[in-house]
Amino acid sequence: MHYEANWKSLDARPTPDWFDNGKFGIFIHWGIFSVPSIDFDQNNHSEWFWSYWQEYKKPKYVEFMKKHYKPGFSYADFGPQFTCELFEPDQWADIFKHAGAKYIVLTSKHHEGFTLWPSNYSWNWNAMDVGAHRDLVGDLKAAIKKVGGIRFGMYFSQYEWFNPLLIQDLKKKLATKNYANLVSYPQMIEFVNTYKPELIWSDGDWSASDDYWRSKEFLQWLFNESPVKDSIAVNDRWGAGTWGHHGGYWNVIDHYDPGHLVAHKWENCFNLDRFSWGYRRTMTSSDVRTVLELINELARTIACGGNLLLNIGPTADGRIVAAFELRLRQLGRWLQTNGEAVYGTKPWIYQNNSNIWYTSRMRLDRKLKPDRIFNPQVEKNTIVYAFVMQWPHYGHLILPSVKATSKTKAQMLGHNHHITVAPHEGGGVKLDIGALDWHSLPSFDAWVIKLEYLETERRNPVKELIKQGLLDENGRPNNIDYLD
Amino acid sequence: MHYEANWKSLDARPTPDWFDNGKFGIFIHWGIFSVPSIDFDQNNHSEWFWSYWQEYKKPKYVEFMKKHYKPGFSYADFGPQFTCELFEPDQWADIFKHAGAKYIVLTSKHHEGFTLWPSNYSWNWNAMDVGAHRDLVGDLKAAIKKVGGIRFGMYFSQYEWFNPLLIQDLKKKLATKNYANLVSYPQMIEFVNTYKPELIWSDGDWSASDDYWRSKEFLQWLFNESPVKDSIAVNDRWGAGTWGHHGGYWNVIDHYDPGHLVAHKWENCFNLDRFSWGYRRTMTSSDVRTVLELINELARTIACGGNLLLNIGPTADGRIVAAFELRLRQLGRWLQTNGEAVYGTKPWIYQNNSNIWYTSRMRLDRKLKPDRIFNPQVEKNTIVYAFVMQWPHYGHLILPSVKATSKTKAQMLGHNHHITVAPHEGGGVKLDIGALDWHSLPSFDAWVIKLEYLETERRNPVKELIKQGLLDENGRPNNIDYLD
Amino acid sequence: MHYEANWKSLDARPTPDWFDNGKFGIFIHWGIFSVPSIDFDQNNHSEWFWSYWQEYKKPKYVEFMKKHYKPGFSYADFGPQFTCELFEPDQWADIFKHAGAKYIVLTSKHHEGFTLWPSNYSWNWNAMDVGAHRDLVGDLKAAIKKVGGIRFGMYFSQYEWFNPLLIQDLKKKLATKNYANLVSYPQMIEFVNTYKPELIWSDGDWSASDDYWRSKEFLQWLFNESPVKDSIAVNDRWGAGTWGHHGGYWNVIDHYDPGHLVAHKWENCFNLDRFSWGYRRTMTSSDVRTVLELINELARTIACGGNLLLNIGPTADGRIVAAFELRLRQLGRWLQTNGEAVYGTKPWIYQNNSNIWYTSRMRLDRKLKPDRIFNPQVEKNTIVYAFVMQWPHYGHLILPSVKATSKTKAQMLGHNHHITVAPHEGGGVKLDIGALDWHSLPSFDAWVIKLEYLETERRNPVKELIKQGLLDENGRPNNIDYLD
Amino acid sequence: MHYEANWKSLDARPTPDWFDNGKFGIFIHWGIFSVPSIDFDQNNHSEWFWSYWQEYKKPKYVEFMKKHYKPGFSYADFGPQFTCELFEPDQWADIFKHAGAKYIVLTSKHHEGFTLWPSNYSWNWNAMDVGAHRDLVGDLKAAIKKVGGIRFGMYFSQYEWFNPLLIQDLKKKLATKNYANLVSYPQMIEFVNTYKPELIWSDGDWSASDDYWRSKEFLQWLFNESPVKDSIAVNDRWGAGTWGHHGGYWNVIDHYDPGHLVAHKWENCFNLDRFSWGYRRTMTSSDVRTVLELINELARTIACGGNLLLNIGPTADGRIVAAFELRLRQLGRWLQTNGEAVYGTKPWIYQNNSNIWYTSRMRLDRKLKPDRIFNPQVEKNTIVYAFVMQWPHYGHLILPSVKATSKTKAQMLGHNHHITVAPHEGGGVKLDIGALDWHSLPSFDAWVIKLEYLETERRNPVKELIKQGLLDENGRPNNIDYLD
Repeated sequence: MHYEANWKSLDARPTPDWFDNGKFGIFIHWGIFSVPSIDFDQNNHSEWFWSYWQEYKKPKYVEFMKKHYKPGFSYADFGPQFTCELFEPDQWADIFKHAGAKYIVLTSKHHEGFTLWPSNYSWNWNAMDVGAHRDLVGDLKAAIKKVGGIRFGMYFSQYEWFNPLLIQDLKKKLATKNYANLVSYPQMIEFVNTYKPELIWSDGDWSASDDYWRSKEFLQWLFNESPVKDSIAVNDRWGAGTWGHHGGYWNVIDHYDPGHLVAHKWENCFNLDRFSWGYRRTMTSSDVRTVLELINELARTIACGGNLLLNIGPTADGRIVAAFELRLRQLGRWLQTNGEAVYGTKPWIYQNNSNIWYTSRMRLDRKLKPDRIFNPQVEKNTIVYAFVMQWPHYGHLILPSVKATSKTKAQMLGHNHHITVAPHEGGGVKLDIGALDWHSLPSFDAWVIKLEYLETERRNPVKELIKQGLLDENGRPNNIDYLD
Repeated sequence: MHYEANWKSLDARPTPDWFDNGKFGIFIHWGIFSVPSIDFDQNNHSEWFWSYWQEYKKPKYVEFMKKHYKPGFSYADFGPQFTCELFEPDQWADIFKHAGAKYIVLTSKHHEGFTLWPSNYSWNWNAMDVGAHRDLVGDLKAAIKKVGGIRFGMYFSQYEWFNPLLIQDLKKKLATKNYANLVSYPQMIEFVNTYKPELIWSDGDWSASDDYWRSKEFLQWLFNESPVKDSIAVNDRWGAGTWGHHGGYWNVIDHYDPGHLVAHKWENCFNLDRFSWGYRRTMTSSDVRTVLELINELARTIACGGNLLLNIGPTADGRIVAAFELRLRQLGRWLQTNGEAVYGTKPWIYQNNSNIWYTSRMRLDRKLKPDRIFNPQVEKNTIVYAFVMQWPHYGHLILPSVKATSKTKAQMLGHNHHITVAPHEGGGVKLDIGALDWHSLPSFDAWVIKLEYLETERRNPVKELIKQGLLDENGRPNNIDYLD
Repeated sequence: MHYEANWKSLDARPTPDWFDNGKFGIFIHWGIFSVPSIDFDQNNHSEWFWSYWQEYKKPKYVEFMKKHYKPGFSYADFGPQFTCELFEPDQWADIFKHAGAKYIVLTSKHHEGFTLWPSNYSWNWNAMDVGAHRDLVGDLKAAIKKVGGIRFGMYFSQYEWFNPLLIQDLKKKLATKNYANLVSYPQMIEFVNTYKPELIWSDGDWSASDDYWRSKEFLQWLFNESPVKDSIAVNDRWGAGTWGHHGGYWNVIDHYDPGHLVAHKWENCFNLDRFSWGYRRTMTSSDVRTVLELINELARTIACGGNLLLNIGPTADGRIVAAFELRLRQLGRWLQTNGEAVYGTKPWIYQNNSNIWYTSRMRLDRKLKPDRIFNPQVEKNTIVYAFVMQWPHYGHLILPSVKATSKTKAQMLGHNHHITVAPHEGGGVKLDIGALDWHSLPSFDAWVIKLEYLETERRNPVKELIKQGLLDENGRPNNIDYLD
Repeated sequence: MHYEANWKSLDARPTPDWFDNGKFGIFIHWGIFSVPSIDFDQNNHSEWFWSYWQEYKKPKYVEFMKKHYKPGFSYADFGPQFTCELFEPDQWADIFKHAGAKYIVLTSKHHEGFTLWPSNYSWNWNAMDVGAHRDLVGDLKAAIKKVGGIRFGMYFSQYEWFNPLLIQDLKKKLATKNYANLVSYPQMIEFVNTYKPELIWSDGDWSASDDYWRSKEFLQWLFNESPVKDSIAVNDRWGAGTWGHHGGYWNVIDHYDPGHLVAHKWENCFNLDRFSWGYRRTMTSSDVRTVLELINELARTIACGGNLLLNIGPTADGRIVAAFELRLRQLGRWLQTNGEAVYGTKPWIYQNNSNIWYTSRMRLDRKLKPDRIFNPQVEKNTIVYAFVMQWPHYGHLILPSVKATSKTKAQMLGHNHHITVAPHEGGGVKLDIGALDWHSLPSFDAWVIKLEYLETERRNPVKELIKQGLLDENGRPNNIDYLD
């Protein structure tokens, strides 16, 4: 297939299977911002430190610098402290593997412009020249490859807050393109050729058009000629107005979590520290989401056709702190039992009953067409998984959307005993999970019930959503508030 | 009461009630060692960094310094990095309070000799002159007072690895006492007068006699004249040979946990990071003990007459990391339900049945004589608490040492329902806790069963232990291996 | 006049009068190299530190870094130490003024690529973003303007040792021009527009052609359109092969000092520390040239049509050390007396008799044609100055090239008494300067004798030099060894 | 000889011959103050930085710290920057040797309390533990020994501005002596035993009595038992009221320079940077005294019985800057010619005629009694040296106090020709030095005329001075203003 440099052609490229099947990735926010590693407001994030301090001049940030640093200390002066001296990429890879992640996305360059690889287009402002004196991108990629089963992705900010070339271009209302031509565009070519990432998570695109960033030209090259043309996945942040419209899968907005099916592959980026993407030294134990919150978010997301990209912020000396590791390993243990209901599944014809979420799978592994983002019908081979987040009163689990037959079989993943299925008077089924020995439950947080041999049924939830006005007539989310 | 400067007189002073009743304290290892904050072996601890590096010259420590610091970098050069810039004592106090701790013990000076208060006897090697530029002892004490209900204790190392005066004294086989006279002794007077701590946790005493350290002289002053003479608690590390023999309560050795009653108040210092007292930046999630381990250790300890002193190591910038905070708050929540079985209780006439541990309490709050370290008999007023760490098979809890009457009442703390008590054929009782609704259990980790109206019984476990040879004829632990 | 972008046209532009008349400028080597500020060999220079260390890997440099810095310390890590905290540009301007300098040339960017002004094309590698946090170029220029009478010049290195873009271009044998297009060329446009320097001292051009650097294009703009098109002076380092051939005045090589007339305006850059351009912290008192050496070099240079550009290296904290200041002020005091023989003079028809050097001046200030780089004849109005560096034996000063008449008058500058002029038997004249009262001599270092009313004579020394083979037939120096 | 611990006995010890004969020493102010290395007022000195900043809180010092350092930066934080990384003691020794110095005095501990040797009584506040990580005292002493002919002396401050023990003692009006007992006294014993200095330059004694400092006890030990009991020289700063009265030679006050004879050996400490003892980074060329000023001060001083102790302040990285080195070598070259008039001489019966100063010497090297601080009579063997600082008008040098005979011989040191001696009508002699060939003069700064075979004369200038009231009846200086 050959792609043209226009959205019609580029948008026609299907999202790679590995991405849809993977369901769960880990997002890593790491950079110079990991040095001050602080924020002062629950609506702020530590990775925006530079902007809050010197662009917005927020008083608490200004005061923090005044109190703890010598006058004139600049953001660039943090550079030598980004030592990464305890960074052991094999240990990170081990954590990601045990967390059950199928891909990772590293902030190879955030809005600060500091590249975690030795970029020719960011001389003396990259991790090889300053601080770590190490190719962090290359080292992490190598460790990820070694551990196997995880795809390597790179976050890349088009925008840089303080790059004087971009500031100039913006002053000239983008009549000049010096920054895009001399920095952002060549950097993308450079890192794709060097690191061959299988995912590019573009960001910081909002301040200019896709033309300014040369996005279509880049994607055309990426899809037709680059060394990763076959496996690369990309998101939708390629210029003002592209979010939820163009590129590859849709991020739409940060934390996008519609609660209903979307007619295109999407991804929910979600932070483990509920108040920041970058590490915050002041993070308390209650700021870290519980494993139940993570399971719940994962279930909501994949039931509606999304992937969950769970974020952690490592420290300036290169560690994933124990509080994060704990949650990732807890989630990984849960996925060891329940992964069957997650990896390689498709949304079902129903997404949820209240807080019970569904996924589905063809038993014979019948392949859906690439543009099918959900299983459109229940056949004899269809397996349905119900994610249960709360133990029901009296142990009676009601699943209104499930239509049973006499052959219907129900079982809790990780637990051998069969569960009795009875029709529920209000419709659907009632499962007596209270009869299971509680002491041998595979989890006290959340459970998955696997249902087989349901009644045949065909349904197109997208059509319903269009009718309800939750999707527009092209199946795109309506009424997104793009402000994060 | 007036005390003489000899052990006979000093040892006669009873341990203050507040200490015995408090049961649970928090130990805080903080100092310059929190800057490198690393160790390389599970038998090492981060707070011994200086000694491992420059006394033992352990290769991994030497190499670490070579790799990450400029040649000639000294331990003193770490000083300016002990910034404590994020230290918020009120936040610490809040955590300790919610953890359920009744006292804290701060390493006001560890073997490195660096004092966390502005000591006149450690000029330019204390937290006011170097690094934090702050009176850390004073600031923490003030916050602790503000929050209420927690006693303030100070750890103090007699020994300093590299103090040239002590090195000289040791070279001269302690014929001179310059170090003790000019440093350690005046420092103790100084900090007692300044901070009025209610606990002194002496350490580092092993290399010299109590005479060298002037311990008896100091304790005489402390008990007779000091501003804290009435409430002060002290431990037993006052010179070679005093451990488990003299002073106040006994620490005996680090992690002392005999599993049987001891005929003197004792304390088990126990670290939350299982491999270090000081903070280790490389601590993984599995290095942090689970809340069940903590509850278990607390139960074992108080059932045998000890207090649990649970250790955390804050960071060089002054934080208690989320992984520690999480455990402390989890333990605190458990204690909110189960504190009745902990605070103010006494060991029972039996300590345990396997891993079920007992404490007891007089319902009319009859006061035991100060020298009584356990309840010697079961009367009609006696309440017994059984700590259960593992859910019994089939929900049948067997308590072999409990002798029931027809009036005997059993209840789980935090759960309203009465528990059926039946005699157990092999002796003791059998409680049907399986009949409780598992979903309303107060915990999934450990439970306390409160027993009332037991059969009258008198027993002196100490005598038994002497007979078994676990205690010597004075009630002291036998065969302690003093090497940690 | 309009210039074309070819050497024929550009070379036709005359050197500005102010430059030829000024004779004496001060060169300032200042940059990140001022931080390590050291060299280890009399053939090295401190400003080449980075190259010696990491390009040539000279053992003493590698060892120095190993001994005094932490492993992995990079050249960029020196940046924050280039504080310039004691930099007082007014004080510098005062020194330059009192030294008698008519222009200064600051290394606005040396081969390290660090710009002393906030260049948009060297983000985070300039003095505003890193270290000084100050516009050093702007601040110095403002002070120079304030003091008056001194022109502001900027040294600019085309080359950067470690710029990855240039390294790439060179690898591709200059088939690409990314570096020139994205860095060096836009920087020149930027600083000319911002600082309006009156001299550009290009350097580091040797590794590529003038085409690569876009030199002709730049000079065309500079001479035709730039804000300094009328007054700008430039040197000859605009690409391999241009030295001593094209551009403005000729530097030819560092320390160029031919000892004979050259048929084009030239400049001798000469260092006050005889072993370095950048400051060396290890500079000893004997490394600093004496004021006699300076006067001698000035005389040799201007007698042959050159300007002297005397170099100093300030410190990383922004000072001109006392040893340099002393020499500059001593030279300035000498010039106060003898400036008449220096500023605004022209070479004479003879350049020297041994170590006695000559300059000349028209009394009526008759203007020579711009291409005249020497006074071609002695007329009645011609004044000749003889620079005497050594007191002659017995006080008899012999000037073989001076042809006296009966009206000839001789006087020492700074001394009132007339000097007796007698014909010398071997030709020329003999002056009895021994008759002057030694105690009122204006100097004990060197003296200038002013001669008036000499015999008419016409001579073209250039023709002689061509005949002798010291100049080629175009009047250019022959046989220059371009290796410094 | 055995000395008692009272002034009468101690004062009776004669100043060692080596000291009186040496005449010229070099004072070295070096310490942590060499790091900020700045002052802001011509009446201040850089070595008092700490006191000006934090004791007096002088605004310019406070502001300097605020502007250039992070909040909370303490004086101790300067420690790691006292790197001395370029310190080459052999190079220093070479400079001192060529300067003609016969002894040096190093600030082994200034009022800041930081010891340049690894003192057991200043742990973590000495050059071995902090910064240089080197025994600066030991290293310099070794180099001095190697070069030969120079005695090693140690400056030692009794006082320490901020030592909390001393602050306490002072608060208690010296009722306690903790500081003296635990710090200053043991330090003196320590460094005498370790480094065996031949001069102790006590200072900082003014705030307490000699009893508090235990001075008499120390000197008794020093003179009777110490390893340097025979050769040690000491000054007079041993407690309030001892200046100019007790101890060894008299410093009286800083810069003491009475212009007349004193009836006891004394020393004039004198700084080469006219505004500071410690190095000032802002020192300008005119702040450095000229070599003529140095010669003049040396002549004035030795003519009146003093020694000149000329001070330099090295830098924090261990260099003697070129501006200082230049002056020391210039003075040394002058002394090579004129040392005969300096070393081993005695004051004459007259000290000066205006600015012409005299020394004298016995030709047969007749030894004066130890208590004789001047040559009381002119005999046939007496040589007299006249130091001439200014070339006399018309070359006629008038020496009013010199009484010639027909045999009287006069010669300029460094110049072979005899000088004609004629009686001067107003008394004394007139020497026709204008007849010497000026071009072969040994100096253009100052000259020494050696006079032999003068008329016999006896005179006691001390008696005259007592009569004039310039000395008190014990020969001590009157009316000294002790405030510096």
